[in-house]
Amino acid sequence: MRLLSKNKVEVRGKVFGGPNPLICLPLVAKEKSELLQQAGELIQLAPDLLEWRIDSYDKVEDVDDCLAALASLREKIGNTPIIFTCRVEAEGGFKRISADTRLILIQAAVGTGRLDLVDVEMSNETIFLEKVKETAARHGTKLIFSYHNFEFTPDEAFIVDKLVQAQEMGADIAKVAVMPKNYKDVLVLLNATLKARMEFLSVPIVSMSMGPEGGVTRLAGGLFGSDLTFAVGKELSAPGQIPIGDLRKAIAVLYDLKTI
Amino acid sequence: MRLLSKNKVEVRGKVFGGPNPLICLPLVAKEKSELLQQAGELIQLAPDLLEWRIDSYDKVEDVDDCLAALASLREKIGNTPIIFTCRVEAEGGFKRISADTRLILIQAAVGTGRLDLVDVEMSNETIFLEKVKETAARHGTKLIFSYHNFEFTPDEAFIVDKLVQAQEMGADIAKVAVMPKNYKDVLVLLNATLKARMEFLSVPIVSMSMGPEGGVTRLAGGLFGSDLTFAVGKELSAPGQIPIGDLRKAIAVLYDLKTI
Repeated sequence: MRLLSKNKVEVRGKVFGGPNPLICLPLVAKEKSELLQQAGELIQLAPDLLEWRIDSYDKVEDVDDCLAALASLREKIGNTPIIFTCRVEAEGGFKRISADTRLILIQAAVGTGRLDLVDVEMSNETIFLEKVKETAARHGTKLIFSYHNFEFTPDEAFIVDKLVQAQEMGADIAKVAVMPKNYKDVLVLLNATLKARMEFLSVPIVSMSMGPEGGVTRLAGGLFGSDLTFAVGKELSAPGQIPIGDLRKAIAVLYDLKTI
Repeated sequence: MRLLSKNKVEVRGKVFGGPNPLICLPLVAKEKSELLQQAGELIQLAPDLLEWRIDSYDKVEDVDDCLAALASLREKIGNTPIIFTCRVEAEGGFKRISADTRLILIQAAVGTGRLDLVDVEMSNETIFLEKVKETAARHGTKLIFSYHNFEFTPDEAFIVDKLVQAQEMGADIAKVAVMPKNYKDVLVLLNATLKARMEFLSVPIVSMSMGPEGGVTRLAGGLFGSDLTFAVGKELSAPGQIPIGDLRKAIAVLYDLKTI
């Protein structure tokens, strides 16, 4: 049995912290029609969650358009939980969006009640994070505080600290994604996840080592404490992602090994 | 691309140290008819190698009978490489066999030229190990020196030392199998394997963490330097083993992740 978090987080019947890590597919579209077509295709693959990377959306600064697209998206996907993510360029996002507009967009989107989780980078200003937290709390939307490093993998203690920091700042779920330079870095991420899970964190964790070397963490990370993994529908949106069908089969094998 | 050993070891066209770890299935039979039936079934599953655990054989002390069974086995399995392993009880073996008889059996079996690799525990007396080494060298049989711990997982430095010791004692392949008490121990084994591969060993490595928790090392260990993994045909012979079909599919996915 894999290691479970003390606190479970449940959204529309999906549980972070259950026997198997949840599987999420990303929505990365420029236009509403593309978004809905993609959503229709991905939903056939039965992911546990979808993440809408709204920073890839051409009209991301047009809040009304975004809310209309969100309404259509929710209609299209029924009861599948949505993670709403809007990264600025410095956070590895697709498109520039001003800090002010982003806050307004997140508050408005969360306010519709159509979202289940919202993910924001911890490197943002405290006042931004506090306002997102307040809005999420008011609408029962779960909060993910995340740390990303697209350049390298910090040491184990640093990664553990980031997860602890997310929890202490009030996140429902703590997330870390780091880039490995080699297989040693991949083990650093797994060691850090396990240490955080065993010693410090009661909330669910989402952790991954990116790139092809890190692909193993998308499959096996759950054993060491990660509660969500990102897969890919057909085409890769990030290196090292594993097609959801392959990932689901491998998880079914690896997370239910028998004693004899 | 996973980490490769400097020295390759090739037996009947199978390469330890190639792009993917090799997959071995164990033969564990009490009688010749059972052995041959099992071999016939396992060979349908196309393992890279078979390991004959001859210590499970009722007539293991009857050298002539063993050699006759070996001849039939070779005929049955054609060109599939065989690892020949005879563990005494203290090494986790199935049956008592005297030290004298065991040496005679190994020397005679290697002498037939029908074997490809022979695996012996490093905890045996030096004179026994030297004689096995000498016989193996004379007949071109590859030598695996192994360390097993069925009770617990020693610390990383200890495991690295055992792999180094196997290489220094002249093994063609160094093997370590240890029992985890928790997922931390599983990472200790992977960390040790990677350290040995990167810093100390030029020969191929076989390493695994046993039990259900360790199952992930049977799939992912190759990424961190292990060159062989043991799977199961139908029924488990050890906890944490993964059916060969599932393992082969998961390896195909995990060891060939794309950059984009």
